[in-house]
Amino acid sequence: MSETAPLDITGWTCPAPLRDHPRVVMGHGGGGALSAELVRHVFAPAYGGPALADLGDSARLTLGGARLAFSTDSYVVRPLFFPGGSIGDLAVNGTVNDLAMSGATAAYLSCGFILEEGVEVATVARVAEALGAAARAAGVEVATGDTKVVEAGHGDGVYVNTAGIGLIPAGVDLRPQRVVPGDVVIVSGEIGLHGVAIMSVREGLEFGVDVASDCAALGGLVEAMLAVTPDLHVLRDPTRGGLAASLNEIAAASGTGVVLREGAVPVPPAVANACAVLGLDPFYVANEGKLVAFVPREHADAVLDAMHAHPLGRRAAVIGEAVADHPGLVVARTGLGGTRVIDLPLGEQLPRIC
Amino acid sequence: MSETAPLDITGWTCPAPLRDHPRVVMGHGGGGALSAELVRHVFAPAYGGPALADLGDSARLTLGGARLAFSTDSYVVRPLFFPGGSIGDLAVNGTVNDLAMSGATAAYLSCGFILEEGVEVATVARVAEALGAAARAAGVEVATGDTKVVEAGHGDGVYVNTAGIGLIPAGVDLRPQRVVPGDVVIVSGEIGLHGVAIMSVREGLEFGVDVASDCAALGGLVEAMLAVTPDLHVLRDPTRGGLAASLNEIAAASGTGVVLREGAVPVPPAVANACAVLGLDPFYVANEGKLVAFVPREHADAVLDAMHAHPLGRRAAVIGEAVADHPGLVVARTGLGGTRVIDLPLGEQLPRIC
Repeated sequence: MSETAPLDITGWTCPAPLRDHPRVVMGHGGGGALSAELVRHVFAPAYGGPALADLGDSARLTLGGARLAFSTDSYVVRPLFFPGGSIGDLAVNGTVNDLAMSGATAAYLSCGFILEEGVEVATVARVAEALGAAARAAGVEVATGDTKVVEAGHGDGVYVNTAGIGLIPAGVDLRPQRVVPGDVVIVSGEIGLHGVAIMSVREGLEFGVDVASDCAALGGLVEAMLAVTPDLHVLRDPTRGGLAASLNEIAAASGTGVVLREGAVPVPPAVANACAVLGLDPFYVANEGKLVAFVPREHADAVLDAMHAHPLGRRAAVIGEAVADHPGLVVARTGLGGTRVIDLPLGEQLPRIC
Repeated sequence: MSETAPLDITGWTCPAPLRDHPRVVMGHGGGGALSAELVRHVFAPAYGGPALADLGDSARLTLGGARLAFSTDSYVVRPLFFPGGSIGDLAVNGTVNDLAMSGATAAYLSCGFILEEGVEVATVARVAEALGAAARAAGVEVATGDTKVVEAGHGDGVYVNTAGIGLIPAGVDLRPQRVVPGDVVIVSGEIGLHGVAIMSVREGLEFGVDVASDCAALGGLVEAMLAVTPDLHVLRDPTRGGLAASLNEIAAASGTGVVLREGAVPVPPAVANACAVLGLDPFYVANEGKLVAFVPREHADAVLDAMHAHPLGRRAAVIGEAVADHPGLVVARTGLGGTRVIDLPLGEQLPRIC
C-alpha cells in the first residue's frame, strides 16, 4: 500500500475471529472461511440489511411490483486471457450465473472498468469485445458503465466489475432454507476445469494440459430445469472454493447434512491428473459454468433428463443427497466404504482465479 | 503492468481518434474528452445497446413492468479519508446521485470491494462503516456484495464499486434531448468544494484551506424539485470534469447552446483562492453533492424556491440559459461584457478525485 488513512481510524475493536489477520491476506478474497469472516464481522455489521443477510449468490428484491434478482462481482483474474475464455467472458457469465442461481433470467448488466495506466488500449478493446460477445450469447444487455484509471503499480492491467439485474419467474423460490433431508444433489457436469485451466497458464506455474475453462452462461440450463418444475430447492454455482464451498454453504444455511458419493462426481482425467501433480483436491477447484442443485426426490429423474438434453448439462449426474444426520456437515463416501469430511476451505488454493 | 495478454490480441485496428494514446493514460479516467473517446470507439462498438447509447448518468430501463434507473461507478479516490468524507461516503452518494439524475429514488446498492493484500482490516472496517452510515442517511439498502483481494503492489488499499437501482416516478422523463432554448439553468449550490478538499490533502500537494467535500446524497433535493413539477428537462451531477463537463455533455446531446453568467455561479472564496494559487478554473473542479438542472422557464422560480427550502439547495442560483445560438457550445459571459468558451476538459485536472 502506498497510502493509509490519514484521519483517525482508531476505536474499531477487531472482533476475535479476525485477530489472526489484522491485515488483509489473499485468502480474504478466496470465497472460503476467511471471506465469510470478513462478511460476518466487518461488512454485515456495517451495512447488512435483510437482503444481504441471505448471503446467496444474488439478492432477491421486490421493486415497483417486479421480483428482481441483483448481484455483483469484481473480476481480477490473471492472466486476462486463458484457455477457454477471458476476464470479459467471466465478467458476463459470472454475474449472469449468480442471477440464474436465484432462478432469474439476466436482463441488464452494469460494467465498471478499473484500468492501469500504461495498459494497451488494444488489450482493453479485446476485453470489451469478449465481454460484448459473451453478453450477446447470454442474451443480456450492458446498460450502464464507468471507467476509472489508476497509476501504474496500483492495478494489474484490467479489473472489471459487473452488477446484474434479472426477473425471477413467479413460483420460483430458490434458497438453502428450503432443502430437506431426502433432496437429491445433482451437479451439471465435470468439475475443476476453470481452476485447472487458469493454473496451467499462471505465471511461474505453467504446465502442459489439454484443459479449457468451462466458462459459460447457465441461464438457459436453469430455464430448462425450471420448466420441469418451479419447485427446485436451491441452486449454486461452485466458483471460488469449488464444489466443497458451495455444498458447505448450503449445509450450513439449511441445517441439513450432505452425503456425497465420491465416485459419482464427474472429474475429467486431465483435471484429476493435474490435481494429483499439484496436490489439490478437485472438490475445491473453481468452476465457471457448472451448477449444483438440490432437487425434491420426486422430480430428480425428470430434472436430470432435462439437464442431459441441454448442451451445458450433458454430463449432469446425481452425486449425493441431503440427510438429517450431521446437520451442517458435508461428508463424502469413498469407494472403499470409508467416509471423509469435506470442509469449507479457508481461502482459494490459487488467488485471483476469477 | 506485471502482465499482458498471452493470447493473440492482434487484429484490432485502433480507431484514428485514439491513436495519440495507444496505451491508457490517467486522463482516460477523467470523465472528459479522453473518457468519451474510449466509450465511443472501444466500449460502445463492443457492447453498446440501446440503454448504453443514452450515455446519461444512469440507464433508464423497464423490467417486469417497473421503470428503473440503473447505474454504476468504481471509486478509487486518494486518500481514502478526506475532509468531509471518505471513499465509503462517495461510493454511496455518487451512485445514489447518478440515479437521482434520472429522477429515481435509489432503493438498492451492490458493493464490490477490491482490497490490496496488507491493508489493515481496521481500515476496511472504517470504510465499510462510513458506507453503511451514508446508505442509511440516503435511505438505500446494500443488498449484495463481493470481495476480491489482489497482491500488494496491484491495488491501493481499497477500491469500491457500487451499482444502484431505483424506481423512476411516473411522468418523469429527464434527458438532454428535452432541453429547448429558453430553459433556465440552475445550479444547486457552491461549486468546487470536493475537488479542492481532495487536492488540499493529496500527497505532495497538501495546502492549508478550510474546505470540506460537499459529498452528499441528492435524492431528497430532487424529490423536492419534482414535487413542484415532474416536467424538469434534465439533471446532471457535475462530478469529474466539473460544471464544464456536465454542461458540455448536455449541450452536445441536446443540440442547443448554453450561455452562463459567469458572476452568477456560486464559487466560495476558499475555492476561488485555491484555484487561483493552483492555476485552475473552478468550473472544471469536481463536485459530489451538487446538481445542475435545465428547467422550463415557467417553472424556474417555483423550482428555485423549492431548492432554497431544502438543506442541500440553500445556495441554489440561476446561472444561465439554453439558447438556439451556437448549438453544442457552452459560452460564459464575463463581468466585463466579454465572453469565453467553456470547453469539454480533456481529462480531470487531478487524477483519482472519486
